Amino acid sequence: MSPWFRDNVEALAAYTPGYQPADRSAIKINTNENPYPPSPKVFEALARLDGESLRRYPPVLWDEFRRAAAAVHGVEPEMIMAGNGGDELLAILVRCCCGPRRPLAYPVPTYSLYPVLAAIQDAGVREIPFGADYAIPEALSETAAGLTILCNPNAPTASFVPVDRIAELAGRLDHVLLIDEAYVDFAEDNCLRLLAECPNVVILRSMSKGYSLAGMRFGYVIGAKRIIETMIKVKDSYNVNIAAQAAATAAIRDRDYFDRNVRRIIDERERLRIALGELGFGVGDSRTNFLLAAISRPPARKVYEKLTERNIYVRYFNQEGLADKLRISVGTSAQNDALREALEEIIRQG
Amino acid sequence: MSPWFRDNVEALAAYTPGYQPADRSAIKINTNENPYPPSPKVFEALARLDGESLRRYPPVLWDEFRRAAAAVHGVEPEMIMAGNGGDELLAILVRCCCGPRRPLAYPVPTYSLYPVLAAIQDAGVREIPFGADYAIPEALSETAAGLTILCNPNAPTASFVPVDRIAELAGRLDHVLLIDEAYVDFAEDNCLRLLAECPNVVILRSMSKGYSLAGMRFGYVIGAKRIIETMIKVKDSYNVNIAAQAAATAAIRDRDYFDRNVRRIIDERERLRIALGELGFGVGDSRTNFLLAAISRPPARKVYEKLTERNIYVRYFNQEGLADKLRISVGTSAQNDALREALEEIIRQG
Repeated sequence: MSPWFRDNVEALAAYTPGYQPADRSAIKINTNENPYPPSPKVFEALARLDGESLRRYPPVLWDEFRRAAAAVHGVEPEMIMAGNGGDELLAILVRCCCGPRRPLAYPVPTYSLYPVLAAIQDAGVREIPFGADYAIPEALSETAAGLTILCNPNAPTASFVPVDRIAELAGRLDHVLLIDEAYVDFAEDNCLRLLAECPNVVILRSMSKGYSLAGMRFGYVIGAKRIIETMIKVKDSYNVNIAAQAAATAAIRDRDYFDRNVRRIIDERERLRIALGELGFGVGDSRTNFLLAAISRPPARKVYEKLTERNIYVRYFNQEGLADKLRISVGTSAQNDALREALEEIIRQG
Repeated sequence: MSPWFRDNVEALAAYTPGYQPADRSAIKINTNENPYPPSPKVFEALARLDGESLRRYPPVLWDEFRRAAAAVHGVEPEMIMAGNGGDELLAILVRCCCGPRRPLAYPVPTYSLYPVLAAIQDAGVREIPFGADYAIPEALSETAAGLTILCNPNAPTASFVPVDRIAELAGRLDHVLLIDEAYVDFAEDNCLRLLAECPNVVILRSMSKGYSLAGMRFGYVIGAKRIIETMIKVKDSYNVNIAAQAAATAAIRDRDYFDRNVRRIIDERERLRIALGELGFGVGDSRTNFLLAAISRPPARKVYEKLTERNIYVRYFNQEGLADKLRISVGTSAQNDALREALEEIIRQG
């Protein structure tokens, strides 16, 4: 019998999403969810969904969301594509650009989904280690890849590459450069202005973090029409359901709520960063809604396990450059205080 | 400059979804949507979505839906995989099984998305014309494909292949056979019992038709764990949002509403079939929520255009074997009456 599945799929090691504890009282700060609820306007929009909305197929091109997002970002609606979460849009662009002899390039460490998406396409990867202070590595412009992805701000390092450096990289590449800005709502700058000067740049945004909509799965890409039109050819006809379209449109329109929501995360992040530093963690600057915190005694893995015993879930990556670190999402004030107290105790006990 | 996109993507002719008129008073019977709203339990489930549900990532493996569907179908939860609409699951399985030297086989005419999914994978297609009365063609078991899809009941022909014939086909294939049962809620039989005897069979179900949830995008696959586990490796981590999971779970649990909803469509379908026959259309049996109606004078295309002028949208496929036919979704009694009256007038005017 011939194998049922393609060799690359048989061999595939799937992406491992963060653990989802069944206990709702757990402190879950392991997947960079926003600890606060979304805008009240989102619930109003969901309450307006009627039988007609549910029985009909949703808009193919997310017309209302496109208009709302275009107004927010100052671009044309046709430069925007929505997806069932940022992950779908990553997969679609990799599908458009990568395959055998068209590898996927990205600096590491970064979002560990990227190599999985390449493997699904039977494409190789060009993993180039970040430079000092997580700067763009020189070799990233010489990979002869089919697509380059730069996660900025980067996960799990929380670091941010200056936009001018990204413009230089884009100018040197003969292929599409995707800037994964899933965390950019918590940074001071972003790559939107590159769209005018770099036709090969596309930007990915997520509504899971700054807009507190991880449960609704909504991401979008902003880029040149040529790229957007090609990505649309490859998507499922009705790739975003009516509830997600309604929720995302309401959320992106409520600028006041968004600004306040982001502001309180940033304030908490800085408070937590100081607290972790006082506990002896090595914590760099963060332009995201999480912190990457290094500790050697007790070993990071042990701290992770002790936190888990206390019903506090952070993320531990057992891989090069990360084995001595914990990735900690910024929670509410109360959650961050509970984390600090737990860490104090764990460190005291050694 | 190297091309930005893969050759097969550049060359791709995208799937064309049915037209979506902006006018909500239009009679839209062109995409086989259910004319009735979903169960009231669906709205109750959506109203229960709170800030916690929305800010957190949704369950990775749709636990509640899996349990509910497993109970309905008498299978284990691990034999079920949910997707962002049936289209996502079709794309995932094609991604697992098809590629260069692993073509996609299916009898034609059928759902025109299949060749698009193959092209995205840079896979060829083996299109085998249906036999007389839309029987499975002999040659379908000799394609040496990577995957065979049989849409049953079939769109757009509304025909149904007996399950015993499908078992024979499955036994002759050395690869996976997907039965696309998107329309099976309106048929008397289905392929569920084949799962016990044919390890290479997987079944696709949709909640867009019988459950009136096209807007929520929810489909699922039932099959052997080996196939389900492989498909899960290839999916996005959080491929179905919390609203769709909640809605689908509530809908599949409400068996009474489902049965009544399906019953009234079938009753209307038979009433409409007789009416179209009386108007001179050639209409075969239907095991779906639509009818394929043949007419030569006036030509089908002209009838389609005249209906559109009257704000009635049906589907016309300008392709071999279908150019003299209209595909008409079963609407409400009032919609079907309005259609009949419009057709009467159009035919009278010639």
